[in-house]
Amino acid sequence: MFHGYAATEPGGALSLIEFEPAPLGTDDVEIQVEYCGICHSDLSMIDNDWGITEYPLVPGHEVVGKVASVGPGVTHLSVGQSVGIGWYTRSCGTCPLCNDGDQNLCATAEQTIVGRPGGFADRVRCHKGWAVPLPAGIDAKSAGPLFCGGITVFNPIVQFGIKPTDRVGVVGIGGLGHMALQFLSNWGCNVTAFSSNPAKAEDAKSHGAHQVVSSRDDGELERIANTLDFILVTANVSLNWSGFIAALRPKGRLHFVGAVLEPVPVEVFPLIVGQKQISASPLGSPATVATMLEFCGRHNIAPQCEMFPMSEVNSALDHLRSGKARYRIVLEA
Amino acid sequence: MFHGYAATEPGGALSLIEFEPAPLGTDDVEIQVEYCGICHSDLSMIDNDWGITEYPLVPGHEVVGKVASVGPGVTHLSVGQSVGIGWYTRSCGTCPLCNDGDQNLCATAEQTIVGRPGGFADRVRCHKGWAVPLPAGIDAKSAGPLFCGGITVFNPIVQFGIKPTDRVGVVGIGGLGHMALQFLSNWGCNVTAFSSNPAKAEDAKSHGAHQVVSSRDDGELERIANTLDFILVTANVSLNWSGFIAALRPKGRLHFVGAVLEPVPVEVFPLIVGQKQISASPLGSPATVATMLEFCGRHNIAPQCEMFPMSEVNSALDHLRSGKARYRIVLEA
Repeated sequence: MFHGYAATEPGGALSLIEFEPAPLGTDDVEIQVEYCGICHSDLSMIDNDWGITEYPLVPGHEVVGKVASVGPGVTHLSVGQSVGIGWYTRSCGTCPLCNDGDQNLCATAEQTIVGRPGGFADRVRCHKGWAVPLPAGIDAKSAGPLFCGGITVFNPIVQFGIKPTDRVGVVGIGGLGHMALQFLSNWGCNVTAFSSNPAKAEDAKSHGAHQVVSSRDDGELERIANTLDFILVTANVSLNWSGFIAALRPKGRLHFVGAVLEPVPVEVFPLIVGQKQISASPLGSPATVATMLEFCGRHNIAPQCEMFPMSEVNSALDHLRSGKARYRIVLEA
Repeated sequence: MFHGYAATEPGGALSLIEFEPAPLGTDDVEIQVEYCGICHSDLSMIDNDWGITEYPLVPGHEVVGKVASVGPGVTHLSVGQSVGIGWYTRSCGTCPLCNDGDQNLCATAEQTIVGRPGGFADRVRCHKGWAVPLPAGIDAKSAGPLFCGGITVFNPIVQFGIKPTDRVGVVGIGGLGHMALQFLSNWGCNVTAFSSNPAKAEDAKSHGAHQVVSSRDDGELERIANTLDFILVTANVSLNWSGFIAALRPKGRLHFVGAVLEPVPVEVFPLIVGQKQISASPLGSPATVATMLEFCGRHNIAPQCEMFPMSEVNSALDHLRSGKARYRIVLEA
């Protein structure tokens, strides 16, 4: 039997439950959980914000642990090896997207905490394709958030060919944004942090920002018009999008990884004149996760984490809900 | 002295005037106009829709003719050679965009009919960089519209690396759209034409569409969900943009070349899930124009034109205003 912390109703506190996992398939991996990050989407699932939650729900999709056992089809991982998993645990493996290395875009990909138990538990299972080994130089303790928040902001840098010579911006300096600053500054870019909170300016600089601009001050936005090649939006609130588009140089890109709730009103003419682009993306493929981990190890990139024992998961969730987490929370098993 | 047809007030009829051109600079080219296409933006300038018109205005920015004389700095063109010009007549030549081959994005590029006389005239002048030679196999008579409408739809195919294996769509089968169908079908793509006018279906197929879908029928859009890699919008009216975004495959692109007047309300979540993109672009650089002309010659691509003598320019403009032009109008000098 597995043991995990489960929500039994929308918004409810989590309590320890015992449950029988689905059978370990031929190509499956069982992981002994050591650490599990908490992500805002765990809260959304606990609260059933998206209407897809099945209770009892064991949240947790930023898992790091050691391989405990493997099915007979798993030959590239060994028991005791450190691995991590994120939002996905399985993809079909045969559709054109999977075949082309875009497993993260597979229409039938299995999500770690949708209809199955996640990582706020002693053990968790996944398909071998999605258990990505931790390379040397990665601290297991803080690695969990890389598998969801981290890859979410790393993936577009790879997908859209951001260059070390680019001038880039990161909007929203929180759980995702503080990792994006580290990635992009180590990528070689000149990095502008956009925040609505002046108190975060020094923090942003410590994570790699070269300058900080208010995301709520239209005048500050105007002063940097026509200067940025790439703006990565990690916020999910409505902002002065026309101002951000104007801040892009010709051929620049405004990219969203936060599911902004209100539609973004895009005026076409400014896009035409500057040949500008707007895009968005979800998490990355296992190959991109592996690339990210290697890059993190080489550049000492790590999320800034607050640690809680897994038994104090409810306090940890309250802390995340308060908006005061700096910047990611990790549960220790 | 030059002679041209000029509007002297917003919306007014054009009348023949005589005017002194600006001096022929060291690097300038004078073109004896043989043909000049009429574009919707000529109407916009005649009507001062954009508030930038200076009267008297000699419209015309789809010019084809023979080099009549050149400044002493022009060594790559010879008198009598066939050339064309489009919306631009000059760019600075020294900014990073010009240096990088993006002269069409130069912030100070000179526009053929803004503050200077265009091609509804016996002669027109431009900088040597923007007089693009007509290669063998191009019919001068119908080439004019390639220099504005044509390059507008050809440029994004090049800029965004559309592949011959892509499934693509063209929204709006008019002056621009009928050229886009020819470009994309000859590019090797599977091409869907979107039109609100069922009467245009056969025409669309004759220009290269493999199938035709109503741009106003949400059900038809739904039936092709998740099938297209690239949708090129040449219309400037508001359509069911969410439906078009849903028609894109993962990693697909919705691209605008028509200045849609109402902001496009972009919902971020569907973009995230499919890693989709929205973009827009203006005309292309001289190098891309030359590439387009070579491609047209090799594939027998030409705009479908209705010819008018230049002396009947007012009838031609009325015909364009009526919306009945099929599909471009060219004035013959």
